[in-house]
Amino acid sequence: MDEFKLIQHAFRDPVPFVHALTRLSNGDDASIHIVPEGQEMVVSTDISMSGTHWPRDFPLNDAACRAVNASLSDLAAMGAAPAWVWLGVMATSSDAADRMGQGVAMALNSLSIELAGGDTVRSPVNALSVTVAGLLPEGSGMQRDAARIGQDVWLCGRAGLAAHGLQQWRQGKHEGEYIPYFRDVRPLLNEGTRLRGLGVTCCIDVSDGLFADAGHVATASGVALHIQLEKVQGLSSLLQQVDEEEAIRLVLGGGEDYALLFTTATGMREELQAFAHHIGQCQKGSGVYMTFNAKKVSVSNMGYNHFA
Amino acid sequence: MDEFKLIQHAFRDPVPFVHALTRLSNGDDASIHIVPEGQEMVVSTDISMSGTHWPRDFPLNDAACRAVNASLSDLAAMGAAPAWVWLGVMATSSDAADRMGQGVAMALNSLSIELAGGDTVRSPVNALSVTVAGLLPEGSGMQRDAARIGQDVWLCGRAGLAAHGLQQWRQGKHEGEYIPYFRDVRPLLNEGTRLRGLGVTCCIDVSDGLFADAGHVATASGVALHIQLEKVQGLSSLLQQVDEEEAIRLVLGGGEDYALLFTTATGMREELQAFAHHIGQCQKGSGVYMTFNAKKVSVSNMGYNHFA
Repeated sequence: MDEFKLIQHAFRDPVPFVHALTRLSNGDDASIHIVPEGQEMVVSTDISMSGTHWPRDFPLNDAACRAVNASLSDLAAMGAAPAWVWLGVMATSSDAADRMGQGVAMALNSLSIELAGGDTVRSPVNALSVTVAGLLPEGSGMQRDAARIGQDVWLCGRAGLAAHGLQQWRQGKHEGEYIPYFRDVRPLLNEGTRLRGLGVTCCIDVSDGLFADAGHVATASGVALHIQLEKVQGLSSLLQQVDEEEAIRLVLGGGEDYALLFTTATGMREELQAFAHHIGQCQKGSGVYMTFNAKKVSVSNMGYNHFA
Repeated sequence: MDEFKLIQHAFRDPVPFVHALTRLSNGDDASIHIVPEGQEMVVSTDISMSGTHWPRDFPLNDAACRAVNASLSDLAAMGAAPAWVWLGVMATSSDAADRMGQGVAMALNSLSIELAGGDTVRSPVNALSVTVAGLLPEGSGMQRDAARIGQDVWLCGRAGLAAHGLQQWRQGKHEGEYIPYFRDVRPLLNEGTRLRGLGVTCCIDVSDGLFADAGHVATASGVALHIQLEKVQGLSSLLQQVDEEEAIRLVLGGGEDYALLFTTATGMREELQAFAHHIGQCQKGSGVYMTFNAKKVSVSNMGYNHFA
């Protein structure tokens, strides 16, 4: 069987989804796509690798499904509607390629996103490179450099729970309350487009840990972010499982949250409270400052760096 | 240093190129791009891996440069003008990431293509996933399914020489006439847009070997391709180096040619002869048939399949 057909195989039943704006889908040297007038194309690439982004004993189909959903979280943070995915599959065997294909199909079929192209190669390690593209009205993309002094800081989603689930998996506990937070990444696509629709201009995908990603907003926007940790969803649950220091470490540096951190003018609180939590303020200065029940929390850089 | 900054570092001097149609370049969760009215976006993804796509003792910067150029060859085959690249860098060390970044910068800087985003991960094997995107006038993309009975078959570029160069490298001969054919991939971008401008509708990137890629055109278009091998550029040079059987094997199944095979109505010969060679005809039937100086050439499938 042709290489990439191994992957497409998984998309056969149901019939592969083709996006209405696709001129030419996979099977040629490249795919061709229409971007309607007044829309812009939003693109992101992520790699997910066995042993780094998921434990080696984690089911490959679940790993591939979460790799795709994790990439889609980047589109959610821009406020884009996803449309297409291109896949680079590095697989230790044709069986591994097949299982990754199944996981990708699982992610895409549930969201009406098209597999527009890809490539497959035999590799000493199972990994996926996932390129996602979506559309949004011109000039409306939410960016990390748009936070302004005096704005509220909000979090849509929870922090720390996925990292705790991953920790439990690594300790051999493969079932229970926290495992799905790691296994089942749900990109906040509807929430992202809703925020964009409400006029939010500053948003970031929280994937490297709340501290690191809040830091990206602070640096890009030239403001300081003050965060009250007791308002972050996830922490109170963790405090029932682990001690305070560890709970805060998981929330701030655990990563894999795929939550959305955004900022807004203070007048918007009522509209947002149904699906997000007000966790802090943008202030004059630089960096990220945190308190937990009014106590200062001090951290070293908790974001993940593959070459640190 | 932040992960992807390792790569961007290589693009610092000269100042990184940003495409005029980019709304938001790399550094955020995703990049944002404008597609002008009347244009369409063409996208392709390829993986290149050490030990599979280049020999393990091949310089990493050259390997990364050719990986990008090989991906751009897919855009050339569609007739698209390249604009953006997203990069997945899998590197065994930060030094390896840096050298791959240098190679990518080498490829992109010479062609005014923007590094629009990417991701980096430490990996047991050096590899790149390269997603390229370009633009073309709506509905004008050249496809592999558009060959028609009675049309001429043409080849722009040469076949077999890169495979012979790779063979020599593997035998320890790291210099000489044939090495650059493997090392220095030149995507036929100008030729591709010129063909599209001339109204050519059927074209394919020859990367898996002339036999396999001609077979893709035959299958997709529902025609038979008859190819006269003595007309294929590259064969006569190889016949001075190796015996006839090996020369034909290199031309048909060696791969890595990054030539363009296309078909046209018979009336176009004069316009094309300046930059391409007429190598055969499309006929009724299926499959690829070859002769060398009027002798039939029989082959088993010579295309490369990573999981065969």
